[in-house]
Amino acid sequence: MSINTFGHLFRVTTWGESHGPALGATVDGCPPGVPIDEAMLQQWLDKRRPGTSKHTTQRREPDAVRILSGVFDGVTTGTPIQLMIENTDQRSKDYGEIAQTFRPGHADITYHMKYGLRDYRGGGRSSARETAARVAAGGVARAALNALVPGIEIKGFMTAMGEMEIDRAAFDWDAIDDNPFWIPQGADVVAQWGDYLDTIRKAHNSVGGTIEVVARGVPAGLGAPVYGKLDTDLAAAMMSINAVKGVEIGEGMAASRLMGSENADEIFMGNDGQPVFSSNHAGGILGGISTGQDVVVRFAVKPTSSILTPRRSIRIDGTPTEVITKGRHDPCVGIRAVPVGEAMMACVILDHLLLDRGQTGGARGRIG
Amino acid sequence: MSINTFGHLFRVTTWGESHGPALGATVDGCPPGVPIDEAMLQQWLDKRRPGTSKHTTQRREPDAVRILSGVFDGVTTGTPIQLMIENTDQRSKDYGEIAQTFRPGHADITYHMKYGLRDYRGGGRSSARETAARVAAGGVARAALNALVPGIEIKGFMTAMGEMEIDRAAFDWDAIDDNPFWIPQGADVVAQWGDYLDTIRKAHNSVGGTIEVVARGVPAGLGAPVYGKLDTDLAAAMMSINAVKGVEIGEGMAASRLMGSENADEIFMGNDGQPVFSSNHAGGILGGISTGQDVVVRFAVKPTSSILTPRRSIRIDGTPTEVITKGRHDPCVGIRAVPVGEAMMACVILDHLLLDRGQTGGARGRIG
Amino acid sequence: MSINTFGHLFRVTTWGESHGPALGATVDGCPPGVPIDEAMLQQWLDKRRPGTSKHTTQRREPDAVRILSGVFDGVTTGTPIQLMIENTDQRSKDYGEIAQTFRPGHADITYHMKYGLRDYRGGGRSSARETAARVAAGGVARAALNALVPGIEIKGFMTAMGEMEIDRAAFDWDAIDDNPFWIPQGADVVAQWGDYLDTIRKAHNSVGGTIEVVARGVPAGLGAPVYGKLDTDLAAAMMSINAVKGVEIGEGMAASRLMGSENADEIFMGNDGQPVFSSNHAGGILGGISTGQDVVVRFAVKPTSSILTPRRSIRIDGTPTEVITKGRHDPCVGIRAVPVGEAMMACVILDHLLLDRGQTGGARGRIG
Amino acid sequence: MSINTFGHLFRVTTWGESHGPALGATVDGCPPGVPIDEAMLQQWLDKRRPGTSKHTTQRREPDAVRILSGVFDGVTTGTPIQLMIENTDQRSKDYGEIAQTFRPGHADITYHMKYGLRDYRGGGRSSARETAARVAAGGVARAALNALVPGIEIKGFMTAMGEMEIDRAAFDWDAIDDNPFWIPQGADVVAQWGDYLDTIRKAHNSVGGTIEVVARGVPAGLGAPVYGKLDTDLAAAMMSINAVKGVEIGEGMAASRLMGSENADEIFMGNDGQPVFSSNHAGGILGGISTGQDVVVRFAVKPTSSILTPRRSIRIDGTPTEVITKGRHDPCVGIRAVPVGEAMMACVILDHLLLDRGQTGGARGRIG
Repeated sequence: MSINTFGHLFRVTTWGESHGPALGATVDGCPPGVPIDEAMLQQWLDKRRPGTSKHTTQRREPDAVRILSGVFDGVTTGTPIQLMIENTDQRSKDYGEIAQTFRPGHADITYHMKYGLRDYRGGGRSSARETAARVAAGGVARAALNALVPGIEIKGFMTAMGEMEIDRAAFDWDAIDDNPFWIPQGADVVAQWGDYLDTIRKAHNSVGGTIEVVARGVPAGLGAPVYGKLDTDLAAAMMSINAVKGVEIGEGMAASRLMGSENADEIFMGNDGQPVFSSNHAGGILGGISTGQDVVVRFAVKPTSSILTPRRSIRIDGTPTEVITKGRHDPCVGIRAVPVGEAMMACVILDHLLLDRGQTGGARGRIG
Repeated sequence: MSINTFGHLFRVTTWGESHGPALGATVDGCPPGVPIDEAMLQQWLDKRRPGTSKHTTQRREPDAVRILSGVFDGVTTGTPIQLMIENTDQRSKDYGEIAQTFRPGHADITYHMKYGLRDYRGGGRSSARETAARVAAGGVARAALNALVPGIEIKGFMTAMGEMEIDRAAFDWDAIDDNPFWIPQGADVVAQWGDYLDTIRKAHNSVGGTIEVVARGVPAGLGAPVYGKLDTDLAAAMMSINAVKGVEIGEGMAASRLMGSENADEIFMGNDGQPVFSSNHAGGILGGISTGQDVVVRFAVKPTSSILTPRRSIRIDGTPTEVITKGRHDPCVGIRAVPVGEAMMACVILDHLLLDRGQTGGARGRIG
Repeated sequence: MSINTFGHLFRVTTWGESHGPALGATVDGCPPGVPIDEAMLQQWLDKRRPGTSKHTTQRREPDAVRILSGVFDGVTTGTPIQLMIENTDQRSKDYGEIAQTFRPGHADITYHMKYGLRDYRGGGRSSARETAARVAAGGVARAALNALVPGIEIKGFMTAMGEMEIDRAAFDWDAIDDNPFWIPQGADVVAQWGDYLDTIRKAHNSVGGTIEVVARGVPAGLGAPVYGKLDTDLAAAMMSINAVKGVEIGEGMAASRLMGSENADEIFMGNDGQPVFSSNHAGGILGGISTGQDVVVRFAVKPTSSILTPRRSIRIDGTPTEVITKGRHDPCVGIRAVPVGEAMMACVILDHLLLDRGQTGGARGRIG
Repeated sequence: MSINTFGHLFRVTTWGESHGPALGATVDGCPPGVPIDEAMLQQWLDKRRPGTSKHTTQRREPDAVRILSGVFDGVTTGTPIQLMIENTDQRSKDYGEIAQTFRPGHADITYHMKYGLRDYRGGGRSSARETAARVAAGGVARAALNALVPGIEIKGFMTAMGEMEIDRAAFDWDAIDDNPFWIPQGADVVAQWGDYLDTIRKAHNSVGGTIEVVARGVPAGLGAPVYGKLDTDLAAAMMSINAVKGVEIGEGMAASRLMGSENADEIFMGNDGQPVFSSNHAGGILGGISTGQDVVVRFAVKPTSSILTPRRSIRIDGTPTEVITKGRHDPCVGIRAVPVGEAMMACVILDHLLLDRGQTGGARGRIG
């Protein structure tokens, strides 16, 4: 990763500000011959798009993605793919006070201290709008993965939102796409989450959340120890998403409470010549390399700091002020972080598939 | 990060296996003119060295580091610094069964599946011995930071070990260096932790732990959004350490339970023209850039899988087996992860200091 | 450099194909606060633009560059700068035979062998049109250099075209911008070059050329030995330009004919405390680091292979064919390579200025 | 390439100074399972070693290479390979005057200006001794290439030394290894070269040279346009060698004198389903991608500046001085640059083989 690029061989550089003319992603290193078109990418952007339920910001932008290069006759050519999303909701307005004030919990003050200036329109580069470009790039990664690894599936869901937590005993994989929180739960639980978030929103407040992303069907052997480990790159990918404050693989932070006799997944020989495991505390990764089990990543998103409740802060001139952030903000940004987490997972898995293919030729050591 | 290298400008490549002739770190990009000698590095290696208390493995290796290049007349020259630690405890022995068996919870099986072969002597490249090289490189980073940022301080400590957790109300910064667990607590608590770990060790078991690393005196403005963020690189750095399963910045995973009104740190103007904050939920990082507050990272280490309790597994030929790992293993590898976490923090902070100096010239936007 | 990106800290990724909707450059790592606008970039694109004299292709495209991100209120923000040039002359036409045929001396056959497919419209990614994006990025680099290094000047000119060679004894720096060949010579020589090229063009042929780029006012100390040397990166930058087959620094290939007593530039102390040199065989670079003298790079461009003279080749199906390349091609592509070489020089110098600032702080060892 | 590292996937970092305890190369990204041992590397180091004929420096160092990591049971493991060469000829002596003086044509003055200090013992990091580490790393690359591309051959030879030039009409590939100049010529020509160099040496002078490196059997399809082109990386690799001032691919600088009708290599269908070419002006590379023809690189080495003839210069304090470089220097460093050029070619070819395998899977587009 270097400043605004991540990835080793499948390299994604996002660019653009919240209220500039456009934003997008430059995707380099995609294998040639992958079928791809704008509709394939648009489906993922639509999932992240604001305004699709009452639980997300009511700002309305089509977030229509255009492919400007790297695709010819419906397939990738192996050259850089430029993805552009025009900003259509960039209303001219008076930013006077926002331009002078540092909102608590935002990047306003750190951008100012680092760069000496900042694009204050809608958060500029630090806006979560940047993640739209990630989702577009993730769509390219998904297309390439589908072409290279038949049967691979990547899905994200929320596991917690404030006091709400999912019940793993009632986990319903198929329910995830049927509710606005992307939770693997039935309608009654969805209703509870909805009521809970309504209450918070009406109280002019916001709340954090936890997202889990699972990749099924990932081949064993991906990951390049010791600094290009699969878990290392997943941790970086998730932590780079706006508002993320923690990342876990498999057992995660709870591993600190386990005994050795509890934690290590026992190994057996499967019928198809592949090893099987008694459990998946490891989250599908041992020594930084995929085991062939589900790759499981979780990350926590802090509550958005843009709330109607007044908070104390300072202006650029050092004078004290109180900040109330008006506007159409998400009461829980964690919801829309679900497709972003999926996109990052897709990018990292593809990147490591290519990296492994480069270094080892993609051959696997035989067992049995 | 690329396979065995991490860092943007201050780049560390570690090399070597547990039972090969030597291991070490190639450190590129260190600024010139930094005073450094082997004794300065050795102090940090001694902190990580096994056998210093009954709570760590009784293997005895001096872990003496040699500087082979990049230092002349007592200062760095700006050219690559090669740090070498010879392995002295590499007894010739029969690895027959270990060579054929995959230990549950270890990287044995994934290295085999990826590379088709593995150096099974003492875990080879996947051994925690690799972290000795990180600690040596971290010593170089500390020396450079001391030269460039007077007053900077980096310290790690355990916050949990199995059921044990530190009491933040009784936090004692000065006690950290006085006990074998590096906990910021008094002697009575240390004794409790000791008894707890003794019991686990005698039960042929092991336990996980949580480590927190704090960097004080870090200048505001470090971090390169959006993929070279300071927290992104810290997450990668910590997750790349052996056995780490989770990484948190500031509030960490708990941020998902907070309300917006609780989470955002309020901002005030300090007497010295620098902003001050009402709290540090952010862990010293907003938008991926340091705020000038303490940078706070936490990570969880799983219990070592090398235990005397038998666990089911398979051999390379696919036949089932039971594994009991004899030898001199740490009952809690989290203890010795403390100096490793400090080393990674030092490397990341220095790297971002240089990166920021390169991109912005190190100038800071004025407030007030 | 990684596939479609070059640079260490100032990183340029070009994207786009000759006949796609657009092409451009993603510029990451530009320092904040640099005054820049589209007109500043356009001046350099206009210099490269086809159809400005009878000696270049008569295709007419405005090559208008748009800045989509990274600039706010007239200055750079330190975030990625997206530069887009729409392709307006992409007429729909029948590519039937071109699609099936490999033109000799072109990348048609190698793209096909590598990727299994190629965008054959106008050469796709391998078209020299890609260099328009480089020139735009070079404009950003020039703006940043002007802000950081007052008085720096970068200028390119042709030194040879087929049998024509400039006369160094009559070198006229000020004449360069006044003639279509960018040669440092008077009107009579320009007329000779014009007649020579006319004859070649009318003979349905093309010719190679040599370009020299000089950077004046480059500070001493730029360059990062031993693989990030200034000359190493300049060689890579120039060799990456379409049709370039050789690169020289200072004395270049002729250095092989010199004696040691002739080659080494003697050193004296200047009046301003800076060293001065008796000559500049070194081309301003010793040990990969700039000396403070003019940085001098030369590169040779082969004759375009797109000529009306028939050449033997094969089709994708392996059958033999004869190729005559109709269309509006440059009889000497070396002419339009002049602004491209200048752009690459600007990018490399800026990149090393930032890199040096990062590693050494930009301080200089004192002499005297 | 980043400061002291080159390569994309096969990454070589060299370290060490001329008169420090040791120097070496950290080689990351070598595929697993490659048979390798110290003797295989030593053969190439012996070729570069000084003192093997009267035409090279009479300094005697065994240049014995040790493999410290990354090889187990006689094959590479896929983890970093550390190669160390101890410096045995580092006699303690008085460097008083050398330490204070900048030798003309050397990196003394630029290292001082950049870093504020330098390791003046034997040239420190800027000494050509660094190339011993490259040759060792090149040996690893050769071993991997032999395992992955049966029949590949890489050979370098001198083509010119001062006034001497080889006669291509009498080119004798088999003679190269039989003479101290590595020229493809008979004994009479070798004797002429010997007399010529003797005369120069006795005149207390030195002379430049030109080296050509040819790689036969390179698969088509290697090279990653547009900045990771095969020729781009070869240009960088060769230019990074000490004293190199120019690099050419195929026709090289002479391409500027050719007509389009002369330059483009015509294409035919070979009997084995591979294209064949009428000539190789391209040097085996079109559009940055290998064609399957011989890859041909040439580079010029300047005469060593370390001569007994006095040259004017200055001291660190700015006072004028005259420099006579005593000691055992090569009258033509170009001779020993031959194995270095071969090593760089091997590294670049392997790197691109891995890179191509990663991005495209190594599949080739079919012709016919």
